[in-house]
Amino acid sequence: MDIVPATDSLCMKDLVAFCKRKGFIFLSSELYGGLNGFFDYGPLGVELKRNLKNLWWKNMVQDREDMVGLDSSIILHPRVWKASGHIDGFSDPMVDCKVTKARYRADQVFYAPVAVQGEKIGYICVTDGEEREAEVEKKVKALLKASHHSQEKPDEIHLKPLIEAQPEEFAFIPSPATGHPGDLTPPRNFNLMFSTQVGAVASEASMAYLRPETAQGIFINFKNVTDSTRVKLPFGIAQIGKAFRNEITPRNFTFRSREFEQMEIEYFFPPDDHLWPKLHQEWIEARYQWHCSIGIKKEWLSLQVHEKKDLAHYAKACTDIVFRYPFGVQELEGIAVRGNFDLTQHQTFSGKPLEYFDEERKIKYLPYVIEPSVGVDRTMLALLVSAYDEDEINGEKRTVLRFHPNLAPIKAAVFPLVKNKPELVEKARGLFSRLQKRWYVRYDETGAIGRRYRRMDEIGTPWCITVDFDSLEKNTYTLRDRDTTQQVRLSEAELIAFFEKALM
Amino acid sequence: MDIVPATDSLCMKDLVAFCKRKGFIFLSSELYGGLNGFFDYGPLGVELKRNLKNLWWKNMVQDREDMVGLDSSIILHPRVWKASGHIDGFSDPMVDCKVTKARYRADQVFYAPVAVQGEKIGYICVTDGEEREAEVEKKVKALLKASHHSQEKPDEIHLKPLIEAQPEEFAFIPSPATGHPGDLTPPRNFNLMFSTQVGAVASEASMAYLRPETAQGIFINFKNVTDSTRVKLPFGIAQIGKAFRNEITPRNFTFRSREFEQMEIEYFFPPDDHLWPKLHQEWIEARYQWHCSIGIKKEWLSLQVHEKKDLAHYAKACTDIVFRYPFGVQELEGIAVRGNFDLTQHQTFSGKPLEYFDEERKIKYLPYVIEPSVGVDRTMLALLVSAYDEDEINGEKRTVLRFHPNLAPIKAAVFPLVKNKPELVEKARGLFSRLQKRWYVRYDETGAIGRRYRRMDEIGTPWCITVDFDSLEKNTYTLRDRDTTQQVRLSEAELIAFFEKALM
Repeated sequence: MDIVPATDSLCMKDLVAFCKRKGFIFLSSELYGGLNGFFDYGPLGVELKRNLKNLWWKNMVQDREDMVGLDSSIILHPRVWKASGHIDGFSDPMVDCKVTKARYRADQVFYAPVAVQGEKIGYICVTDGEEREAEVEKKVKALLKASHHSQEKPDEIHLKPLIEAQPEEFAFIPSPATGHPGDLTPPRNFNLMFSTQVGAVASEASMAYLRPETAQGIFINFKNVTDSTRVKLPFGIAQIGKAFRNEITPRNFTFRSREFEQMEIEYFFPPDDHLWPKLHQEWIEARYQWHCSIGIKKEWLSLQVHEKKDLAHYAKACTDIVFRYPFGVQELEGIAVRGNFDLTQHQTFSGKPLEYFDEERKIKYLPYVIEPSVGVDRTMLALLVSAYDEDEINGEKRTVLRFHPNLAPIKAAVFPLVKNKPELVEKARGLFSRLQKRWYVRYDETGAIGRRYRRMDEIGTPWCITVDFDSLEKNTYTLRDRDTTQQVRLSEAELIAFFEKALM
Repeated sequence: MDIVPATDSLCMKDLVAFCKRKGFIFLSSELYGGLNGFFDYGPLGVELKRNLKNLWWKNMVQDREDMVGLDSSIILHPRVWKASGHIDGFSDPMVDCKVTKARYRADQVFYAPVAVQGEKIGYICVTDGEEREAEVEKKVKALLKASHHSQEKPDEIHLKPLIEAQPEEFAFIPSPATGHPGDLTPPRNFNLMFSTQVGAVASEASMAYLRPETAQGIFINFKNVTDSTRVKLPFGIAQIGKAFRNEITPRNFTFRSREFEQMEIEYFFPPDDHLWPKLHQEWIEARYQWHCSIGIKKEWLSLQVHEKKDLAHYAKACTDIVFRYPFGVQELEGIAVRGNFDLTQHQTFSGKPLEYFDEERKIKYLPYVIEPSVGVDRTMLALLVSAYDEDEINGEKRTVLRFHPNLAPIKAAVFPLVKNKPELVEKARGLFSRLQKRWYVRYDETGAIGRRYRRMDEIGTPWCITVDFDSLEKNTYTLRDRDTTQQVRLSEAELIAFFEKALM
């Protein structure tokens, strides 16, 4: 086979269309015009997501002796969010265009005064995004023209985020939507938690919030877990579940959505400052290796260490695992050392002791915690971006998803060479139903064999098994590899041994 | 071994305490006094729940060729709930005690006029529950005394649900909380959906609801699924996910909670009235057998056919699979034939065609649907109630959870006979880590072997493997069965073959 690898990089528009066409991801409530920031996973997306979550659970909880799991509720008592600081501090600065009602995150809008030879002639204002530089150029040009400086060269432009603007500047800064100075409101804080009412009457007491993170459900159950299990420090509690943030500007497909899923670990250890650097490094290494192991492209992964000055007051360190998405390098997972801030807060706000009794040292303390926190939807996107490929086989273009077999929605497809030979069909159906007991496999008899291969390549199925006339005679099957397109002949026992070795 | 089976039946109070003590289920936000109607699953509960959901998914989606999966968002466009009828009709009748502010579901409160020799002397009013008969007797007695009829016998009492009371009767019906006539408000409808605001400004347009069922997410994606996959009628779409109902009176532990999880199937087929009776029977049979197969006690399961007069106007039939919980016989799963009501509604409200093109018959139509819908939390409760047992072994009382091995949180535990013999520990650790690659197993070396057995019995671990001195010589291990407590000696290869056969 002659395979020509693709060189073009993937653009998001194509990925979004592909995900819809093949049933990975749909815009939620699309039938009713869609709901901004919400997504549905289709038949293939849900299998990919299940494989991802099950693998994380197996590797992070079941393969380790120092971990247990938890599944706490999405709606929690409002005091939880008072204690955690989310009610007072979990907000983004927001500005509105008074005319168009367009809404922006003030840290995603940039402004600059424009001057000619030191004389200020006005302001420009642009939103963040790929087109930003072109927008700036266009708006500066328009401003020069309007102020009769078209023939002159403006002084150098220094863009600053809108949150840094002085109150008196807002009268002169134009709205990105209308272009008119003074149309933007000054920034105000907007809490990102979705609120709802529990019980039948609206009152302060019955106000509740959808969790903006799964982590607090772990902290408030710390005592329940130590009381009901035999865990000893250091140990971790892991949780997978939905979380909700009322993002002002959801964007980049499923990367920043309003409803999303997290896989979080709180790893508790004694509060000794000499302990955390080593544990932190171990978790960074373990999590980085894990992302590589599931098929995320290593060359697009890197680490970003937060600077001390950017850390929350209670945090000791934080390192992000970042991924080069088509829209830029962005956080995939954060691994923070949080000290014992959360347990301290919940102990104070609840008035109930949360201390751990260290039997060896015969002392009580509130343990420190390391929090490796990764987004399911962000990982899904990194998996799709890493797997998506286009190549050419014998001159024919093909789309192929190079998923790791453990992640692939469908592990193998069984084909009879042709569908009008009952003995081939019968043999293929027999093999199919035996394989189906162990793995998610599919049967397909429709169309030419080449087309059936392409259909499976396109959805990332690693192997196709064809039952041909030799199979009837010699009891062997051809196993075709998705990536190399190479075929080998194997007996059923060899096939099963192969899958057992290749799959988790 | 001499095993004496227990005879006492389980009471809910004991089950709730047991679930907390062993880390199956905690009251949510317990640290802050709890949140009524919300629960957290602890380390063992989350494993049991994962096994349950994964098994349902394997059996209902992956083992069948006529099924695909979906995972739609929890927050959906408000028009979805207008079309489905939930905004207008998904409510319970509620009454309030004006004095105590206690709130009741009007169909769970019962009243009756009390008369002596045909002369009405007043009303009584009681809430539903185990103590109802005693309450009635007490209240009638008090009424007779207050109206100076203590020496007389009241006419027969006919209790009726409060929703059947006439408006003019409310002045005379006493509140169950105060006992004073006229303290209850007349019933009014209370919508059970939790609402929230999407986006930063509260307005009609940004109002959204947490889904009260996962089913509508399937219907609105019907076209997305048929467009992106190769499914042909009949086929089904399956989904597992959280749903939320603002129940007025959450009760019976996790049976009626405000946040819960559903496993739902919408099984589509051509809209021919002669087709559904057979398909309906097949689904009832398949789902009944499935509940038996996961270890729910067959003798506590039964079917309840809804009478025609109790069906929604669009429903053709409905059969419930019910379970004998400690608090009574209640619905575990409903299997309804819904016609094409939902697709028709969404087609009308969205103005977009949702018809399926039948290639064989060359016609378009909106398919009918059968909906097998089961609650995860209700199934968990039925599993726990079915598995919980107390018996006596050699005169010693033991608590044991007789989970089906596929459902058991931990499949096996590996013990060295004693922990102070390095060669035993090393051999046990080696076996443990090899088994761990395939199954969720745990290692335990603490305490006498009998105590370690009991700990595993109590959390439902089907097998314990002990590494003793014979293991060192003969390379065999003792495998102890949880239910019979019998032991056999097996080699490692035999152990693995045994687990492969016994486990999914």
